[in-house]
Amino acid sequence: MSVHPVSTCTPGSVATAPLEVLGRDVRVPLVTGGEVTYAALDYAASAPALQRVWDDVAAYAPYYGSVHRGAGYLSQLSTDLFEQSRATVADFLGCREGDQVVFTRSTTDSLNLLASVLPAGTQVFVFETEHHASLLPWRDARVTYLTAPRTPEQAVASLEAALAQRDPYGPALVCVTGASNVTGELWPVRELADAAHAHGARIVLDAAQLAPHHPVDIAELDVDWVAFSGHKLYAPFGSGVLAGRADWLQEAEPYLAGGGASRKVARRADGGVDVEWHSTAARHEAGSPNVIGVYSIASACRALTEAGFDSLVEREQGLVTRVRAGLAGVPQVRVLSLFGDDAPRVGVISFVVDGWNSSHFAAALSAEYGIGVRDGLFCAHPLVRTLLGSEPTEPGECGSPETEPGEKSLNAIRVSFGAGTPDEHVDRFLGAVTELVRDGAKWNYRTEDGRCVPARD
Amino acid sequence: MSVHPVSTCTPGSVATAPLEVLGRDVRVPLVTGGEVTYAALDYAASAPALQRVWDDVAAYAPYYGSVHRGAGYLSQLSTDLFEQSRATVADFLGCREGDQVVFTRSTTDSLNLLASVLPAGTQVFVFETEHHASLLPWRDARVTYLTAPRTPEQAVASLEAALAQRDPYGPALVCVTGASNVTGELWPVRELADAAHAHGARIVLDAAQLAPHHPVDIAELDVDWVAFSGHKLYAPFGSGVLAGRADWLQEAEPYLAGGGASRKVARRADGGVDVEWHSTAARHEAGSPNVIGVYSIASACRALTEAGFDSLVEREQGLVTRVRAGLAGVPQVRVLSLFGDDAPRVGVISFVVDGWNSSHFAAALSAEYGIGVRDGLFCAHPLVRTLLGSEPTEPGECGSPETEPGEKSLNAIRVSFGAGTPDEHVDRFLGAVTELVRDGAKWNYRTEDGRCVPARD
Repeated sequence: MSVHPVSTCTPGSVATAPLEVLGRDVRVPLVTGGEVTYAALDYAASAPALQRVWDDVAAYAPYYGSVHRGAGYLSQLSTDLFEQSRATVADFLGCREGDQVVFTRSTTDSLNLLASVLPAGTQVFVFETEHHASLLPWRDARVTYLTAPRTPEQAVASLEAALAQRDPYGPALVCVTGASNVTGELWPVRELADAAHAHGARIVLDAAQLAPHHPVDIAELDVDWVAFSGHKLYAPFGSGVLAGRADWLQEAEPYLAGGGASRKVARRADGGVDVEWHSTAARHEAGSPNVIGVYSIASACRALTEAGFDSLVEREQGLVTRVRAGLAGVPQVRVLSLFGDDAPRVGVISFVVDGWNSSHFAAALSAEYGIGVRDGLFCAHPLVRTLLGSEPTEPGECGSPETEPGEKSLNAIRVSFGAGTPDEHVDRFLGAVTELVRDGAKWNYRTEDGRCVPARD
Repeated sequence: MSVHPVSTCTPGSVATAPLEVLGRDVRVPLVTGGEVTYAALDYAASAPALQRVWDDVAAYAPYYGSVHRGAGYLSQLSTDLFEQSRATVADFLGCREGDQVVFTRSTTDSLNLLASVLPAGTQVFVFETEHHASLLPWRDARVTYLTAPRTPEQAVASLEAALAQRDPYGPALVCVTGASNVTGELWPVRELADAAHAHGARIVLDAAQLAPHHPVDIAELDVDWVAFSGHKLYAPFGSGVLAGRADWLQEAEPYLAGGGASRKVARRADGGVDVEWHSTAARHEAGSPNVIGVYSIASACRALTEAGFDSLVEREQGLVTRVRAGLAGVPQVRVLSLFGDDAPRVGVISFVVDGWNSSHFAAALSAEYGIGVRDGLFCAHPLVRTLLGSEPTEPGECGSPETEPGEKSLNAIRVSFGAGTPDEHVDRFLGAVTELVRDGAKWNYRTEDGRCVPARD
């Protein structure tokens, strides 16, 4: 069985230079004195803006005008830019004839939009391993949570069995991630899509963590919808995307009610109000569109394509291999994995360190090395608990339970990177992990306002 | 009866210079040859970014990081900036102890959020004169549409009568605009709030068109909530605000379901999923926050406050007086008004020109003078039809019906301006109106793709 294909290369063999991103020269203070350039290794939460994206936004900003709403030159220019951006995103995703690209604010918003357009009686099937954005939006539907599979083959078999047994055998939607936001592992999207379609279900691909790391082709993967966020795709200006089949979108009530979604509004003789809604993407885009956010996504799509997405993938895979090899050399480190060591994955790697509270470890990486990672349960509580073999605990959302150093860690550390990551960041990270495990932290850390911060004894 | 107080000054007496905005040097081509600096007179749709807002965003952008989601220095800095921005907006609006500031994407989004948290059985009261963002979001509620009042006193009396007669006498919400997006006229917000509270109802102020033109004090106006958009407040980065009472917000289901809104998620023994939601503003802010959008709003709030909002109001009122006096000097022009000539208003003025199709007039202002205004029904169809005395027509949303020049106009032209508008734009506009009415357009115009464009015979 083929999983989503990712090319690999040997450690240290880097295909291209990293793309220029904002913040590459930002210096941050160290608790031990002095300062250092910041190593942004939290791409899975939010990636820095590509310099190219920033330059495009800065060049456009003086020309900003209302979209779909003005007679002036800048309004018409902005409207063209907005609709051209829609076409660019459609191209980037390989959209089919008739697919719609709806602009949202994020992946979370895209999936909440899709949840709002499900035909009555739709059953939703989702693996418990999804992050909360994919796990929780289906509030009006009957949801079947599938147990964490341990191989891609198990995932497909589990989905097929669940779909076959659904009762009644009515409309169904499968929601699956392309790449886990915890382990980075790739899911067998095409096979899951085939299984869904074979059982009369539809499928939405949560590409939040896939799109920044790998080309996504909606037709080739044969998924019904794709959702992703600008802020993980080097375009952090408040927009996201839901792209795919138009029928459910056209037939449902608008996501937001307001101007832009309405074509015609008139008082009725009985005192009420008649509304005729648009049937295009505008139906679900009420309010003034975030043209800067949308344009920034299109700019990122163009930048990744023009840089040669395949060579970016190749370079990132070199970094993945290097990080995994480096972490494997530290016996106290355990990398979290659902599908096993050989599973293909993107530049998102979570781990725990024996004897360490993960929050303290992450705080030390920041305070003593200028490295930004994330600790916690990564808005994917059931998955991380499964991987840690722990019981449900009481951490703050996306935060960390406070335990004493030396206790078993109830959460994890995540390092993530992408097209803008220089080799030095990865090398500094591996050096820091080795040093922290060998020598311990130079400072103590305590929790304050939900954050782990340095505390001199 | 006092309406919302606005200071006035005599024509030509301008208190201060305009604030610097992006796009002030942008040159656009004229259909008659050559080019001219663009006169952005469509602030009511979207205002240009303040230079100060852009500078703040540009200074922050390299420090961008994930909010509430990371252990790194830039994540912590970004989280602080995000929460400080919340406090800045609360200050700007004069929020009371216990009020919540929730960040949304726009006024439309804010009012849809509020609609989603109404207690069961809430009746909504809204004047038919509202724009669609205030008119349409109340889809699950019983809505009473109040007929267009012709004085502020009529508005209050009409609301009181409707609230008193409601059956059953249960929870109720009044939604009212602070300043009309068509006529710019100010509504008697404090009096309407008093009426609402006297009848056991709550009230939300749609400040989309008020906040950019006038200080808004939630406590002084005694409204329960205020909604506004960044893109009309010189901060066009995709964020908006809903601020006010926390109780309904805390008690309702989250607006979006996903990470950030959830505090804890765990599998249940029966296969389902338990979710514990936040009770803070985060409850309704699922997904990665748009920190750039939010920071830009805070920056605009600071800029307006520090520039001296009262002097900006005074200056804008000078422009209002000048535009109204100028238009009054052209007999073919009819300015639209609900409350009459003496009603206080902000820099938003709509009008029709006898013998002209409004779309052609707006197109000529753009193509022959480089002036950007808006034509159409302004996402406030019932109000504009009432003001024009016309029957419901079939225009595209916010667009224009195609009629031959000389026919009665079925839509209107809107000129709007604010803190960034130089005197020259207003003077050019008045000169252009006079010239077009006297000499006619130099070109013909036709509708193409829903837009009115120049067409040489």
